[in-house]
Amino acid sequence: MAPREVVVRQIGGALEGPAQSLPWKTMTVADDAVHLSEAHRRRAVILAVRPEVDGGHYPAKRVVGEPLVIEADIVGDGHDALRAVALDRPASRAAWRETEMALAGNDTWRAAIELTALGRHAFTVVAWIDAFATWRRGLERKLAAGVDVTVELLEGAALIEAAHARRADPALRQAAQVLRGAGPLAERIAIATGAVLAEAMARAPDRSGAVQYGRELVVTVERPLAAFSAWYELFPRSTRGDGAHGTLRDTEARLDYIAELGFDVVYLPPIHPIGRAFRKGPDNADAAEPDDPGSPWAIGGPEGGHTSVHPALGTLADFDRLVAAAHRRGLEIELDIALQASPDHPWVAQHPAWFKRRPDGTIQYAENPPKKYQDVYPFDFDSTDWRALWHALRDVFVFWCERGVRAFRVDNPHTKPIRFWRWCLAEVQARYPDAIFLAEAFTRPRLMYALAKVGFSQSYTYFTWRTTRAELEAYATELACTEVAEFFRPSFWPTTPDIFPEHLVHGGRAAFVARLVLAGTLAANYGIYGPSYELCEHEPRPGAEELARNEKYQVRTWDLDRPQSLRHVIARLNRIRRAHPALHGNRTLRFHPTDSEFVICYSKHTPDHRDVVLVVVNLDPHHVHRAYLTLDLAALGLSGDEGFQVHDLLSDAHYTWRGARSFVELVPDHSPAHIFEVRRFVRSENQFEHFL
Amino acid sequence: MAPREVVVRQIGGALEGPAQSLPWKTMTVADDAVHLSEAHRRRAVILAVRPEVDGGHYPAKRVVGEPLVIEADIVGDGHDALRAVALDRPASRAAWRETEMALAGNDTWRAAIELTALGRHAFTVVAWIDAFATWRRGLERKLAAGVDVTVELLEGAALIEAAHARRADPALRQAAQVLRGAGPLAERIAIATGAVLAEAMARAPDRSGAVQYGRELVVTVERPLAAFSAWYELFPRSTRGDGAHGTLRDTEARLDYIAELGFDVVYLPPIHPIGRAFRKGPDNADAAEPDDPGSPWAIGGPEGGHTSVHPALGTLADFDRLVAAAHRRGLEIELDIALQASPDHPWVAQHPAWFKRRPDGTIQYAENPPKKYQDVYPFDFDSTDWRALWHALRDVFVFWCERGVRAFRVDNPHTKPIRFWRWCLAEVQARYPDAIFLAEAFTRPRLMYALAKVGFSQSYTYFTWRTTRAELEAYATELACTEVAEFFRPSFWPTTPDIFPEHLVHGGRAAFVARLVLAGTLAANYGIYGPSYELCEHEPRPGAEELARNEKYQVRTWDLDRPQSLRHVIARLNRIRRAHPALHGNRTLRFHPTDSEFVICYSKHTPDHRDVVLVVVNLDPHHVHRAYLTLDLAALGLSGDEGFQVHDLLSDAHYTWRGARSFVELVPDHSPAHIFEVRRFVRSENQFEHFL
Repeated sequence: MAPREVVVRQIGGALEGPAQSLPWKTMTVADDAVHLSEAHRRRAVILAVRPEVDGGHYPAKRVVGEPLVIEADIVGDGHDALRAVALDRPASRAAWRETEMALAGNDTWRAAIELTALGRHAFTVVAWIDAFATWRRGLERKLAAGVDVTVELLEGAALIEAAHARRADPALRQAAQVLRGAGPLAERIAIATGAVLAEAMARAPDRSGAVQYGRELVVTVERPLAAFSAWYELFPRSTRGDGAHGTLRDTEARLDYIAELGFDVVYLPPIHPIGRAFRKGPDNADAAEPDDPGSPWAIGGPEGGHTSVHPALGTLADFDRLVAAAHRRGLEIELDIALQASPDHPWVAQHPAWFKRRPDGTIQYAENPPKKYQDVYPFDFDSTDWRALWHALRDVFVFWCERGVRAFRVDNPHTKPIRFWRWCLAEVQARYPDAIFLAEAFTRPRLMYALAKVGFSQSYTYFTWRTTRAELEAYATELACTEVAEFFRPSFWPTTPDIFPEHLVHGGRAAFVARLVLAGTLAANYGIYGPSYELCEHEPRPGAEELARNEKYQVRTWDLDRPQSLRHVIARLNRIRRAHPALHGNRTLRFHPTDSEFVICYSKHTPDHRDVVLVVVNLDPHHVHRAYLTLDLAALGLSGDEGFQVHDLLSDAHYTWRGARSFVELVPDHSPAHIFEVRRFVRSENQFEHFL
Repeated sequence: MAPREVVVRQIGGALEGPAQSLPWKTMTVADDAVHLSEAHRRRAVILAVRPEVDGGHYPAKRVVGEPLVIEADIVGDGHDALRAVALDRPASRAAWRETEMALAGNDTWRAAIELTALGRHAFTVVAWIDAFATWRRGLERKLAAGVDVTVELLEGAALIEAAHARRADPALRQAAQVLRGAGPLAERIAIATGAVLAEAMARAPDRSGAVQYGRELVVTVERPLAAFSAWYELFPRSTRGDGAHGTLRDTEARLDYIAELGFDVVYLPPIHPIGRAFRKGPDNADAAEPDDPGSPWAIGGPEGGHTSVHPALGTLADFDRLVAAAHRRGLEIELDIALQASPDHPWVAQHPAWFKRRPDGTIQYAENPPKKYQDVYPFDFDSTDWRALWHALRDVFVFWCERGVRAFRVDNPHTKPIRFWRWCLAEVQARYPDAIFLAEAFTRPRLMYALAKVGFSQSYTYFTWRTTRAELEAYATELACTEVAEFFRPSFWPTTPDIFPEHLVHGGRAAFVARLVLAGTLAANYGIYGPSYELCEHEPRPGAEELARNEKYQVRTWDLDRPQSLRHVIARLNRIRRAHPALHGNRTLRFHPTDSEFVICYSKHTPDHRDVVLVVVNLDPHHVHRAYLTLDLAALGLSGDEGFQVHDLLSDAHYTWRGARSFVELVPDHSPAHIFEVRRFVRSENQFEHFL
């Protein structure tokens, strides 16, 4: 029937007000709005599947070895029984793997799958009405109610025969015969409700009415280092003791020290030739003296660009040696990729189209009025020759991957197009699936999250400026306990060459220890900028949130043996981190109330609570603080009144606690922080359980 | 280049543990993972658009006259300025309407659009980089920093000329000439930063790089009654005073009474012929006496089925009279559609395929072991003749729509296929866009929500059983202050013919008043089952959560003039609801802490705070309770220390309060509840502002 005018009668008082003025009479509708298709008969409805980031627009993140728990909210009408399976496959393959899902309560179904291969992994969910399970449940209820079930048994026989027709199975044929037969009722019921029949029926499901969730979701699988890592940043040119310009060989000599500190990654600022034009002097002085080394981020000179090594640091061969030497020590070398060029970069002459030329013929340099960075040219990602530029930038990553680098810190990614990153990171990981990327994005929260969504493995955070208990609890909770945890992996850094926060200027050693412990236990990924950090360097450059004599602009020499060095605390922290799987992720983070705003308390645990770590930190470096903790015992895997032992892994002190209320005292000079291993008391052995 | 094997070198300690065992060496990757297309250059990224239900799988709900606030989280790289527009259109039209969006902070953009037509309405968002706004902002920063801008002016001229080429405009041509000209710098700057140029440029945007959000979202627009309504349920056969079987004419005579109570909707249980086979006697007795009327939900007899009127109630002509008489009083008649049949329903003989036949040849009746409902046959929605059945059921709604009914209460929708409802409700609303549907779904939460998502306008809730302050706060917050509010419109009912909760058995009149006030102010949609409710009928049927002498099975006579009747309280409540727009929605609901678990306090307000209502209820019908309230003054539109007046609209008592702490005392027998209008004190006029 053709579309027709519907005259909608205005009805009653409810339509007074705005409704009166509506152009309802002009509404045209078709006579058959929706055609009835077979799909309408399907009765299972999959409402939501998790993890799903922005409705499936972006992948969730996991690492190999970490299980992917797939959840789905599924309903059917009435009281019929449902059955559901999770489908998953590497994105590069077509064939799905199926995993049976189990009802986890409140119409949520759950399955855990193993992720064994790096790369993009797709998953979705299929569900259908399980007619046999429905029948069997009804049968059992009727038996319990003492209702006659002879007819039910015949209905069951029909279901079983249909299953046998789908998938021949002697067990099914026999069961159907018994249910139809004249044998004793008790025997027929025993067969009908028996496990043998249930399993045989489960093997021959009727999936003709199965529905598949409307989307295929994706999870990006990276290597474990993406989720759990400790980074150590240092300037290779400051690795000599004698004040001369250090080399990659000198850096190699520093590796034993870094390995002893227990880090995983050695992060080097750009190691490329540095431009001479507009080179900056010490502490960003406009004019440089001839022997000022300049900023490593002013990349490119006559000697080469992003794929060259600064002659003063050494050669590519030296770099290869450094990479190999690091691997021998269980370390890996990480490079800082800054996509910008100095005026002396070879590309400026070779590819003028890659830079933005202004009406006066000059090339646009970086600026942030009134600041000008004449020593840095941004690339013009939207240039007429953009494809060649994008490929060249991608190949910078590929070049270093081919030399064994698999970890990159990306400088200011938020000032480059977001879609460039989505393309570039996918390109690199397609070739080197174990490559990981840390975004140095100190910018607005949604932009930081967007960069994570398009592929950055880790990101810098606001931790550097979060100092009060309320700030730390709110921020860490947002990162660890909300949807953010599905796509954004925070890396906590107490300082960087660009940022030396005020609370470390006057906080002394206790502040350095507290910030170190917070960074290393609140976040599974963390890093420090050394040696200035472990040496508690704290003289600020006047008027700037930086250290004085900033290494970005000059060579420094460091006395690693300064008595106040934190090297032993750091080594201990990193040993604790490695030994305690509870600290290898963030999702189990729970904060526990304390009655002091200066005392913060939180825990992490493994899913099975075999490993439970409880951290208490005094946020005030100047005063002793005492506090009562109100522990969430369930989060610690403890029952109400049992005794338990807390072992401070920093000081090796042991305490026996009982119940939720506990008292702590933190003296800045001795112990600004506790990292407790929580041990349950095992009555059987009359001792505290040792997990590790 | 063809796919090749990538040998991934195992790197460093970070790969110890699970990673070691991975089959990385077998990973195959293509050389060019992603082809670079023009789309990669687009620099705006639209991360999320709201309202979006289940990632766009289901429509949000609004009513005509209610603005639709569209929000989008949009980011670009760097500091470039963005511009965004919301697109919307009736789903039946192809052409989009555009509405400029404004930045609302934290990278969220917002636009409000008016919804003037009933039906499905589509919307999405488009965003792009605004090169001119970016340039102008940079110019202003440089001017502020005292930087020379002569070159910037030339860059601006180029942007303006490009705009002029897109859209000829004298203002643009002239501005470009001035910026390129040799006129005084001050003059050029004045033009460059002037509003005339900005507006002209805004009219000629460069949208070549615009991106559109990946989905088109839908909002279902219904009439105001869907969002704000008061329902009165009564059994027509009990509308006579003399104990005889009431008729639709008797019901007509009851309309003035219902109108005086201030309800919008008169809800009638099924009015169709009632089956005789297995008819139930009083209080669900298995055997009925010859003159027992039976349950109206056992639909169908020799006299007809779902489109007939029970002869004892009258004729279709009487029904038409009733509808018209209701409309004259600003009321509308609502029908209860129960999709099931008695064994005597004409369809049983006419369409045997619509019912499920068992192996013994009998028709499957409804049951819930050990309970059996031999008087009710469910339809077999999955039968071989399902299409004909579905169309017939749809046409039941259409039949009554054609007789002027536009509101339906659907009995047990959760026992019929969810996709049937999605299809059926859309079919009916395609013909009668002002038809609304109340789901009588007392079932699991996700199934109730699923029914709302597929089209039910309103739904019954668990309110009937939520009695403590904690229960009420948690449940009302879930319904009003979470994503649930986008698709699920709760209707709060203190009792129904099926449910007479225990707290009303012994609570007396105070409990009836308290539950009435809670239902009518916590939820914009509510209803009562009368006259038993206003008459405080409270004798339970032993062993059941029902009233004794349940009207479902027998005719009752009611003395509407009983002295304890709540008719005046109800009339007052409904007048208050109509007069106060704050109560016409749920989204602004806020609970305010009190220091008594028996005293609950909450407020609702209009977006502009012109109307603010504060409700306080004593949840204990047996004792006086006093409490200090800690008011969230911001939610009330008040500043910290100003005085304000609260006017109890139930008792007309006035109080002047100041600040967040206030004291209340609630005496069950006199005033178990306050419904305060909050009035700000206006110093200028030295009196309290009267909003209405």
